[in-house]
Amino acid sequence: MSDVRALRWADAGAGVEILDQTLLPEQEVWLRLGSAAEVASAIRDLRVRGAPAIGIAAAMGLAVEMARHAGLERDEFLRRLDAAYTELAGARPTAVNLRWALDRLRRLADSLGDAGNGVIACKLWGEATAILDEDRAMCRAIGEHAFALLPEPEARVLTHCNAGALATGGIGTALAPLYVGHERGLRLKVYADETRPLLQGSRLTAWELRRAGIDVTILPDSAAAVLMREGVLDLVIVGADRIAANGDVANKVGTYGVAVLARHHGLPFYVAAPTSTIDPHAASGAAIPIEQRDADEVRRGFGRLTAPAEAAVFAPAFDITPAELISAIITERGILRPPYDASIADALALDTAQHPPV
Amino acid sequence: MSDVRALRWADAGAGVEILDQTLLPEQEVWLRLGSAAEVASAIRDLRVRGAPAIGIAAAMGLAVEMARHAGLERDEFLRRLDAAYTELAGARPTAVNLRWALDRLRRLADSLGDAGNGVIACKLWGEATAILDEDRAMCRAIGEHAFALLPEPEARVLTHCNAGALATGGIGTALAPLYVGHERGLRLKVYADETRPLLQGSRLTAWELRRAGIDVTILPDSAAAVLMREGVLDLVIVGADRIAANGDVANKVGTYGVAVLARHHGLPFYVAAPTSTIDPHAASGAAIPIEQRDADEVRRGFGRLTAPAEAAVFAPAFDITPAELISAIITERGILRPPYDASIADALALDTAQHPPV
Repeated sequence: MSDVRALRWADAGAGVEILDQTLLPEQEVWLRLGSAAEVASAIRDLRVRGAPAIGIAAAMGLAVEMARHAGLERDEFLRRLDAAYTELAGARPTAVNLRWALDRLRRLADSLGDAGNGVIACKLWGEATAILDEDRAMCRAIGEHAFALLPEPEARVLTHCNAGALATGGIGTALAPLYVGHERGLRLKVYADETRPLLQGSRLTAWELRRAGIDVTILPDSAAAVLMREGVLDLVIVGADRIAANGDVANKVGTYGVAVLARHHGLPFYVAAPTSTIDPHAASGAAIPIEQRDADEVRRGFGRLTAPAEAAVFAPAFDITPAELISAIITERGILRPPYDASIADALALDTAQHPPV
Repeated sequence: MSDVRALRWADAGAGVEILDQTLLPEQEVWLRLGSAAEVASAIRDLRVRGAPAIGIAAAMGLAVEMARHAGLERDEFLRRLDAAYTELAGARPTAVNLRWALDRLRRLADSLGDAGNGVIACKLWGEATAILDEDRAMCRAIGEHAFALLPEPEARVLTHCNAGALATGGIGTALAPLYVGHERGLRLKVYADETRPLLQGSRLTAWELRRAGIDVTILPDSAAAVLMREGVLDLVIVGADRIAANGDVANKVGTYGVAVLARHHGLPFYVAAPTSTIDPHAASGAAIPIEQRDADEVRRGFGRLTAPAEAAVFAPAFDITPAELISAIITERGILRPPYDASIADALALDTAQHPPV
């Protein structure tokens, strides 16, 4: 079982502890954050990243903040609640899970009327804990479902970017079946694309899998095709940033290329993500906007100039993998198969109340 | 016309001038090298790189060295010739062109008997100049042949690594048709994969194309698939490190993946290389050994630790692109088409005396 966590409640006092991901893999430093402002700052600085983990961190930060203010007058308490909500929601404006988690606490507070500041604060604390626990359960459920897709007694798996424990409250999404398999004695040989430009594969995925004792090898993104041709892979599994109603998947740039290569080499290509990642309002991948990353992430790798300073750069943050290249989408509710418009609609119909609208 | 050169004769005195590629793109520094030892050192330190350029540099270095010794006794002159040959040949032992160029000068010296040191030194100088000139002509011929494959009035081209002026004595191989097209007013939009781990695409290809005034955009290797899907490319062209008798091509890692992606998207995939790159003794790509690069090129790519220090790494230096993915191989003798076993045999039958055996 992986002991890697992106964040946790502090043992003593009111605090959120966050593993500072900007310092990995060189240093493992836990930050103890005692206010909404400190949590917002950690989110802004990418010390905690990954959509689920950000949402959880924000909820915990709001709870910690309000626990400190339980003794205030009611008006002042509510004013502080507003301010903390606003600061946390603005930390990464485009992160859907962040707003969803904060709204869930806000609605709860509104529903409690004049129950008293202490009761409200405790209920918020409980709700943040519930969000963390639900995310853990979601990861575990994805891991169990996806585990059934792994060959035995050995699975040789390629992944891209980091959709692991460091991105969630639990054991991750794409990496979850690997942790489940490792628990059960499955032999694993994992390959992690380094994932330029920000190297989440070599910095984060390699770190957390090694921490769990799982055999992992990093490679330049461009070497994935060689692995496939050499016949040393059984499957590819990645996470998702957003999934359209037809099954098209937006994920870290490079995912689409890996999917094409997997198809060429006859390898299954799986996407693991919670149903909250599905955006029923996006009919297809064409409806998902793709932002460009800062050119200097490519031109100045890690501080050093590695290209002409003014060179033009093409660096989309994400790409769209069309549904026809995806063998299955594994959610906490089960394995979705093509045709995805039908299987996704069925999965969403089960129950959407508990999950963030995207 | 590109004014970018990897190396040249010094204007005054006996010297080879080399553009220090380890300092690009930040600084453009020409090194003036006055001895075989200095040239060998520059080759060892990768200040000059690319198989053709290394061979030319070695020949010029030997000529410069012997010009300084023309006044010595004959025995001492020959002893110096031996020593310089050995030092230069050992600078990068696996570089085929290096040994080929040196042997060509050595055979010439041997053939001159007791013509006198001055005559021998001058003849060596002339031969080194001939090797440089032949390489320039080879690049130009490749460029002219390959130019015919570019669409007009605009060509949108993806390349990988650096097979340009910086790798040769002339205008390069894969980049040669772009320089020819630019001369003739063809509108060009060039995309250069950054080419991890050593970033020859962003450091070198982007630099030399910008120098020539050609529109170039760099991208993470993993974004090439997105470009293809967006329909903004007309073709892919790359160089080659070795070509088997059946048309399989060994080139910088990542080339194979790009070839698969090009096939998936219906784009022509061209290889440009001199016939000297063809190894008739390798029946197929399976006969070409592929070395692994140093793991720290991936783990510490930018001087900073970007992966767990002990992480396993898969980093082949080259990969093999099977002939069936290659639309044409463009040599100085013309455009070779499938079936390559026949077209390659025909091309080699024309005349092999002038070219290095691989």
